[in-house]
Amino acid sequence: VELDEVRALAMWMTWKCAVVNIPYGGAKGGVTVDPGSLSRRELEGLTRRFASEISIVIGPEKDIPAPDVGTNEQVMAWIMDTISMHQGYSIPGVVTGKPVGIGGTVGRREATGRGVSIVVREALKAQGRPLEGVTVAIQGFGNVGTHAARLLGEMGCVMVGVSDSSGGFTNPRGLDVPDILRFKQGGGRLTDYPGEGERLSGEEVVELPCDVLVPAALEGQLSRANADRVQASLVAEGANGPTTPEADAILFDRGVMVIPDILANAGGVTVSYFEWVQDLQNHFWDRAEVVQSLERVLTTAYGQVAALAAAEKVDMRTAANILAVQRVAEAIKVRGIYP
Amino acid sequence: VELDEVRALAMWMTWKCAVVNIPYGGAKGGVTVDPGSLSRRELEGLTRRFASEISIVIGPEKDIPAPDVGTNEQVMAWIMDTISMHQGYSIPGVVTGKPVGIGGTVGRREATGRGVSIVVREALKAQGRPLEGVTVAIQGFGNVGTHAARLLGEMGCVMVGVSDSSGGFTNPRGLDVPDILRFKQGGGRLTDYPGEGERLSGEEVVELPCDVLVPAALEGQLSRANADRVQASLVAEGANGPTTPEADAILFDRGVMVIPDILANAGGVTVSYFEWVQDLQNHFWDRAEVVQSLERVLTTAYGQVAALAAAEKVDMRTAANILAVQRVAEAIKVRGIYP
Amino acid sequence: VELDEVRALAMWMTWKCAVVNIPYGGAKGGVTVDPGSLSRRELEGLTRRFASEISIVIGPEKDIPAPDVGTNEQVMAWIMDTISMHQGYSIPGVVTGKPVGIGGTVGRREATGRGVSIVVREALKAQGRPLEGVTVAIQGFGNVGTHAARLLGEMGCVMVGVSDSSGGFTNPRGLDVPDILRFKQGGGRLTDYPGEGERLSGEEVVELPCDVLVPAALEGQLSRANADRVQASLVAEGANGPTTPEADAILFDRGVMVIPDILANAGGVTVSYFEWVQDLQNHFWDRAEVVQSLERVLTTAYGQVAALAAAEKVDMRTAANILAVQRVAEAIKVRGIYP
Amino acid sequence: VELDEVRALAMWMTWKCAVVNIPYGGAKGGVTVDPGSLSRRELEGLTRRFASEISIVIGPEKDIPAPDVGTNEQVMAWIMDTISMHQGYSIPGVVTGKPVGIGGTVGRREATGRGVSIVVREALKAQGRPLEGVTVAIQGFGNVGTHAARLLGEMGCVMVGVSDSSGGFTNPRGLDVPDILRFKQGGGRLTDYPGEGERLSGEEVVELPCDVLVPAALEGQLSRANADRVQASLVAEGANGPTTPEADAILFDRGVMVIPDILANAGGVTVSYFEWVQDLQNHFWDRAEVVQSLERVLTTAYGQVAALAAAEKVDMRTAANILAVQRVAEAIKVRGIYP
Amino acid sequence: VELDEVRALAMWMTWKCAVVNIPYGGAKGGVTVDPGSLSRRELEGLTRRFASEISIVIGPEKDIPAPDVGTNEQVMAWIMDTISMHQGYSIPGVVTGKPVGIGGTVGRREATGRGVSIVVREALKAQGRPLEGVTVAIQGFGNVGTHAARLLGEMGCVMVGVSDSSGGFTNPRGLDVPDILRFKQGGGRLTDYPGEGERLSGEEVVELPCDVLVPAALEGQLSRANADRVQASLVAEGANGPTTPEADAILFDRGVMVIPDILANAGGVTVSYFEWVQDLQNHFWDRAEVVQSLERVLTTAYGQVAALAAAEKVDMRTAANILAVQRVAEAIKVRGIYP
Amino acid sequence: VELDEVRALAMWMTWKCAVVNIPYGGAKGGVTVDPGSLSRRELEGLTRRFASEISIVIGPEKDIPAPDVGTNEQVMAWIMDTISMHQGYSIPGVVTGKPVGIGGTVGRREATGRGVSIVVREALKAQGRPLEGVTVAIQGFGNVGTHAARLLGEMGCVMVGVSDSSGGFTNPRGLDVPDILRFKQGGGRLTDYPGEGERLSGEEVVELPCDVLVPAALEGQLSRANADRVQASLVAEGANGPTTPEADAILFDRGVMVIPDILANAGGVTVSYFEWVQDLQNHFWDRAEVVQSLERVLTTAYGQVAALAAAEKVDMRTAANILAVQRVAEAIKVRGIYP
Repeated sequence: VELDEVRALAMWMTWKCAVVNIPYGGAKGGVTVDPGSLSRRELEGLTRRFASEISIVIGPEKDIPAPDVGTNEQVMAWIMDTISMHQGYSIPGVVTGKPVGIGGTVGRREATGRGVSIVVREALKAQGRPLEGVTVAIQGFGNVGTHAARLLGEMGCVMVGVSDSSGGFTNPRGLDVPDILRFKQGGGRLTDYPGEGERLSGEEVVELPCDVLVPAALEGQLSRANADRVQASLVAEGANGPTTPEADAILFDRGVMVIPDILANAGGVTVSYFEWVQDLQNHFWDRAEVVQSLERVLTTAYGQVAALAAAEKVDMRTAANILAVQRVAEAIKVRGIYP
Repeated sequence: VELDEVRALAMWMTWKCAVVNIPYGGAKGGVTVDPGSLSRRELEGLTRRFASEISIVIGPEKDIPAPDVGTNEQVMAWIMDTISMHQGYSIPGVVTGKPVGIGGTVGRREATGRGVSIVVREALKAQGRPLEGVTVAIQGFGNVGTHAARLLGEMGCVMVGVSDSSGGFTNPRGLDVPDILRFKQGGGRLTDYPGEGERLSGEEVVELPCDVLVPAALEGQLSRANADRVQASLVAEGANGPTTPEADAILFDRGVMVIPDILANAGGVTVSYFEWVQDLQNHFWDRAEVVQSLERVLTTAYGQVAALAAAEKVDMRTAANILAVQRVAEAIKVRGIYP
Repeated sequence: VELDEVRALAMWMTWKCAVVNIPYGGAKGGVTVDPGSLSRRELEGLTRRFASEISIVIGPEKDIPAPDVGTNEQVMAWIMDTISMHQGYSIPGVVTGKPVGIGGTVGRREATGRGVSIVVREALKAQGRPLEGVTVAIQGFGNVGTHAARLLGEMGCVMVGVSDSSGGFTNPRGLDVPDILRFKQGGGRLTDYPGEGERLSGEEVVELPCDVLVPAALEGQLSRANADRVQASLVAEGANGPTTPEADAILFDRGVMVIPDILANAGGVTVSYFEWVQDLQNHFWDRAEVVQSLERVLTTAYGQVAALAAAEKVDMRTAANILAVQRVAEAIKVRGIYP
Repeated sequence: VELDEVRALAMWMTWKCAVVNIPYGGAKGGVTVDPGSLSRRELEGLTRRFASEISIVIGPEKDIPAPDVGTNEQVMAWIMDTISMHQGYSIPGVVTGKPVGIGGTVGRREATGRGVSIVVREALKAQGRPLEGVTVAIQGFGNVGTHAARLLGEMGCVMVGVSDSSGGFTNPRGLDVPDILRFKQGGGRLTDYPGEGERLSGEEVVELPCDVLVPAALEGQLSRANADRVQASLVAEGANGPTTPEADAILFDRGVMVIPDILANAGGVTVSYFEWVQDLQNHFWDRAEVVQSLERVLTTAYGQVAALAAAEKVDMRTAANILAVQRVAEAIKVRGIYP
Repeated sequence: VELDEVRALAMWMTWKCAVVNIPYGGAKGGVTVDPGSLSRRELEGLTRRFASEISIVIGPEKDIPAPDVGTNEQVMAWIMDTISMHQGYSIPGVVTGKPVGIGGTVGRREATGRGVSIVVREALKAQGRPLEGVTVAIQGFGNVGTHAARLLGEMGCVMVGVSDSSGGFTNPRGLDVPDILRFKQGGGRLTDYPGEGERLSGEEVVELPCDVLVPAALEGQLSRANADRVQASLVAEGANGPTTPEADAILFDRGVMVIPDILANAGGVTVSYFEWVQDLQNHFWDRAEVVQSLERVLTTAYGQVAALAAAEKVDMRTAANILAVQRVAEAIKVRGIYP
Repeated sequence: VELDEVRALAMWMTWKCAVVNIPYGGAKGGVTVDPGSLSRRELEGLTRRFASEISIVIGPEKDIPAPDVGTNEQVMAWIMDTISMHQGYSIPGVVTGKPVGIGGTVGRREATGRGVSIVVREALKAQGRPLEGVTVAIQGFGNVGTHAARLLGEMGCVMVGVSDSSGGFTNPRGLDVPDILRFKQGGGRLTDYPGEGERLSGEEVVELPCDVLVPAALEGQLSRANADRVQASLVAEGANGPTTPEADAILFDRGVMVIPDILANAGGVTVSYFEWVQDLQNHFWDRAEVVQSLERVLTTAYGQVAALAAAEKVDMRTAANILAVQRVAEAIKVRGIYP
């Protein structure tokens, strides 16, 4: 990771938080290291040193790190413990994405996938389409893809194609999602999945005939090269940046609605925010309250973005950006520049 | 504003907060200046300097200013920004009455007017009178009066007279409240209102035949001079101190119930308190929750004051004062004087 | 009180808090003095001095004392006031068990007794037994016993025996609980209770024929000496440590279920925790919310302990201990030992 | 004491500190009470309460009270102890004028009198006059007058007149200062002094034939009424404000040099400053170092004021004021007005 | 080490600091561990953990640990580093006895031995005896004994006997101190010293014919058993507690002057105090300033104790205790008991 | 200024502070702006904003900025005022290089030049050469060069050549330094200096026949191109980096001694350190004390570097670097790496 990349990601977080209207400003940090090359002891040591170094800029009332690429619940626990031991008492609110046993929240792991399922449902509802029988293809079957598949399946959607980094397969009559999830949890690769369906590559998944496409793998998967072959009428960006600007234009012209990443996958940061709120209060929510609050945040944000898109006659990404910039600008204006 | 006035207002806030049982102690501050004579830049400069000077005595855990005469959301935003920039991170809970975009609450602008409507409703309910068709006259049509008019209208009351500083008018068959509100929002003066009704002065409004009178203009409007001509059976003080002690006695003797200011217009400070609670938690309520919480606070307080008035056979103002002093005294007694 | 005793009690608090899963670590403190031998002024002086001495280790974010033997609401108020005056603003969250008027919570006094009634209800519910007509004997009629009696009575149970330090009495057809409570509130001793029933000693109460026995007096009341004469099929420990290890084994062999103290009387610390949460938010709950939250905490904990007891084929006390140690161990493991 | 008086005294302190160039800003505080009417216990209670109330504005890095009328070393010790106990460790630097045993400085009691003797010596030295045989009259024989008398005596001056509130006496051949000091320390009033000399009133002392007059009693002693009868060629103001503006003009016209109070009696605040410096370092000076440092501060200040008086052809008071205002203005200018 | 021992040592420090009049209150801490059994890594880990645990009670303005038995400069460095890293910047003043490179002071290692030499010199000076040719025997040749020997030798004294734990030897004509010191620094045991002199045991050293005896080994070396065989006329306690109360009485009766430990070996804590002062100022003294300051502190203290002993006709130990208790009592009295 | 440049300068400061053994770690900061292009108001605004942004990393106990290129006393005053106003009280120790009136030190402006003169004197003294008549050439006549010229002149040296950016001139019999300084203070350029002497360029100055050369202009002035033409036997680097590595080698081979910049011009940071020490104590030194302290620091450092150069048979620059790295390494080693 490099300084400029971190800067860009920090800005991205700013817009994402503004779209879903949570009281965060947006920040990122990073260490230039391959965590896979470290022993657990080295990783702990590095984490605690890093936590010490950044301890003057983080804190429950200042900046609250959460896990991203290469970090996880354990790393968050070490940061929380380091800051807490330095201060002399537990400060769970200094990070989110912690284990539940030390102040984490239930429902965080599935949060991004759940957010994807919510915005898909809202988009279909706005079109007056029932969820029952809607066909969905998901590219990428990590944390986001699996939870989105499960939850959309529970809503009545039919999963017609999935892929992970090993490849994918399709079944126009619908895949057996629970069975695939069990297979994945057992450590399998989708290309080895023994169930019913036709093999195909991850690139082919995005071109499957379906109603909804969820690109939840890498960035740049929908590009000038394949945008005109996307058959879905709705794209929900589970990954960050899966659609290139050129593809955006093509899809817009073709009438394909794209729910942009800063809205579609904002479920993760939203539940991080819920975790922080719970830590501030030292009062913890049950799963139902987390789900209900996430529903409220994302349906509100979806509605505001969609209304702005309709009013301004722009695509959803542009509308989300306008909304985010407006909110930040308004806050800056009313606070003033001081000193 | 002078030191003694500020001292008196601080005490008034103490009793008001105690009556509605919110955990505030009561304080006031002020600057001897006519804000209208300042440029926006001067006003910002003065506000930030003042915020710096008082920064050792204010804070989310100490004392939380809110707007009063001559200050508004913008001034609160500057105070919040000044304190936050000095501290190095956002501290929304240092003031209330902020713009919603930087930590304010929904429902604050209408809070005082809504509070007036709630206590009127409670008083009538206690008398077993339905709201439908109750006639109301409102003196003063600023923030308090307009929202009270709208909300009482929505409850079924008939507005028979209103006035602002330019004058007023009456219509025994009921005024068209939504139309008047639109006219006022357009910047008009009531004396120029083209709708149906008979012109009269603000002084005459308080003597109109009606069930409920809401003096929401200046202090001292109900005095020895006119108290025996008030025809309403219920007076709800939207303004601070609209009834002189002499008028109080006359009205009590005549069986007119007066809901005193520290109860009737406590909706404002109550929602300020809600804003602070939301800021402490960094978790924000929707309008329904604000309204419901305000309902709970004011109906509870109304009930306690009314019960005390009945038990002690005193008017509502005396009962409210007794209740407030009792609560403060009890807290002081149990904490003790130390050092 | 001695250092080792305080240390042991601190550990006990750790397990109790872990069983009911509230975010407290467990601590105790004490002063070697007989408060009964002090004047009120001396007690206040001693309390304020002690509060000053421990002020570096207590605080809303560190350690939050609550009343125990020899302390009460007034003492908590003095501690709160001392810490607050030293700091310069009110810090209600530094102690719990405060008077309601200065930041205490409703529903705390009855909390332990209510907790006892909840776990009894849950145990019977798990056995498929309706509460109506279940017979209950209660040894000890202080704060815990009286509230447990009242609440179990309200649930439909029949109180067949009660005792306090003066003795007790029994009525197989059921005692008139409200009448006894009024008598006790008037300062009477149960041995002088004029109502219907047969006199017996406190020791005899535990051997009464009944469905449920609540030992809520001193420790060690159920011992090798009398455990085989206990006729109840369910024992809910309202007191701390009323059952000796030998009695535990006998009761387990006889198929008598014992709900252990760290679960059965955890209602007190749980509502202390609720008080602290309310103080952190400066937002206070009504009684319904306190009761409902306590219900949720204790039924969840009961369910988890019972499930673990069933799975591990151990008695409830062992299961509660396993659960508590597991939770603490998991938190320590994930945080790591640092430095 | 009243608010306006305190305000004025605070400003006076500003100029005094600026003249002697010590890094203090100038402040005063007070309590409206007659300490003589309080028991020791009441005085301690009042002091500790007052210290608590002002604790947010005082502190070693903010504002450092020192004793003035009605307060003494004991009161300072209570303030220091209160602040220290609240904070949890000793903070001697929060006040000056403390007893030596808890962080006070040696040489503070005599500091003001020593300062008077230093400026007198400097003034005579500048005139090329040896101290030996210079005649001095002192009006007022409290802390300032006695130490000035003793020290000027040690320098070789001849004391020809002294007075206290009971009256005074004169001896043109010189009074026996050590003997008078012993008499005063024994609690005697000068009017009862049995030693050699002629009785006269305090008013007459200022008109004695002498070289140096030290008015060290009350304010306004040199006025239009008697200024033209002053026979001394040098007046050193030991008291605050002993010369009225009219007297100032008369004396200036007559060629009598007046060393103004903000210079002549600045020895007290200067040694208070030394005490604070010692407390900040926790390193204490012996008497020699205190005396030497005071010498350096006052001779420097005297020289600067005298040079300015010569350059600007003004009297010493005007020069001292110019110097003080210049220093404060320069600091304000270079720091700027912010916010 | 046990709690009671630590408590006693803390009190001892209180009296020692009071005798030499340095602004410390007296405290001790300890860990029950044999540091010799730990690896360097374990010792560092234990030290950092201990530092974390006590971090709420230590600090430059609160309590400043210094090395004692089983700890050294390296351990102090780890404590300093731990506290500093937790705080985010260097806090050298949190401990004394640090290496010079990170904020320690020059002259600390020799400080206790130098203190012994100073009080011996002062005692002889008071008796009008020149140092030249005074004979000295030293029991114990660790840090204290070696530096005392070297410095007394430099003053002109003749060393006639020394011993360490391995034994000692004597030479009535004087030992070659520099040569012995070189031998010791090379790691040798005195029993193997090849230089001139007669072998004898450590016990015999205290009975050598000499003017001055410095017991600098273990406690209890001068007891009822040997006190009447001590031939020195002056005993300076380099160790803590080398003289039993019975021996004290015998020596006093025999006219042998004993300079008690809390005065004789106070050089160590005094230079620790100097280190702290330097750290507070971030300004460091050269060796000359350290030596000169230590001279001033100890000669002043010696003079005050000796004067008190003479005035009260008591031995030096009693006088030192009286002086210490008086100083602490006076400070407590003037501060008052609060709260 | 760029990030990497700031990083490099920070490291340079580390070595410079280590060579002169002052307790600073080394840091730099900067703003990418041309201050010359800003109005005074803009410069103040930018400075205060920058001060706010860095306020979490600066402070008397953390990091203390001082003026460098493009900043001056006024900028330091603004930083000090900003931090102070945010904190609520004056914090002079947060920056050095402040105006004397608000906590700056006397003697700072001339400090670097004085340091150059001290090391030149020490080097000559070590060679046994008297200063009287030593010839000196100075390239660069800004703050460093002018003060070095004046002070070396006062020591008896003969200035034979000077230059500024406009050019220079030489006089083998010695220039009239006071006259040149007056001319420069009047704003003149050396090329226009009307006094006696021969015109030459700045490049030629370094090749003048002289004993001592002080390059005090830009970096890289002594390079491969001209190093073999330097006729001085001693070069004292007043500027930072005036000698290239190649020139270093040539001069060393030729036996020319070079006193490296991190020693020769360390007088500036040393007096900045003195200013900070004075601010921490709030006790200010007179010029004599500043000069004497600077003498002590630099002569000590010079002696240590020279001794190391002799012992290790390396040039002075290498010796200075070794000394600096050793000191930092030793501190790191004894503190350890934690966490």
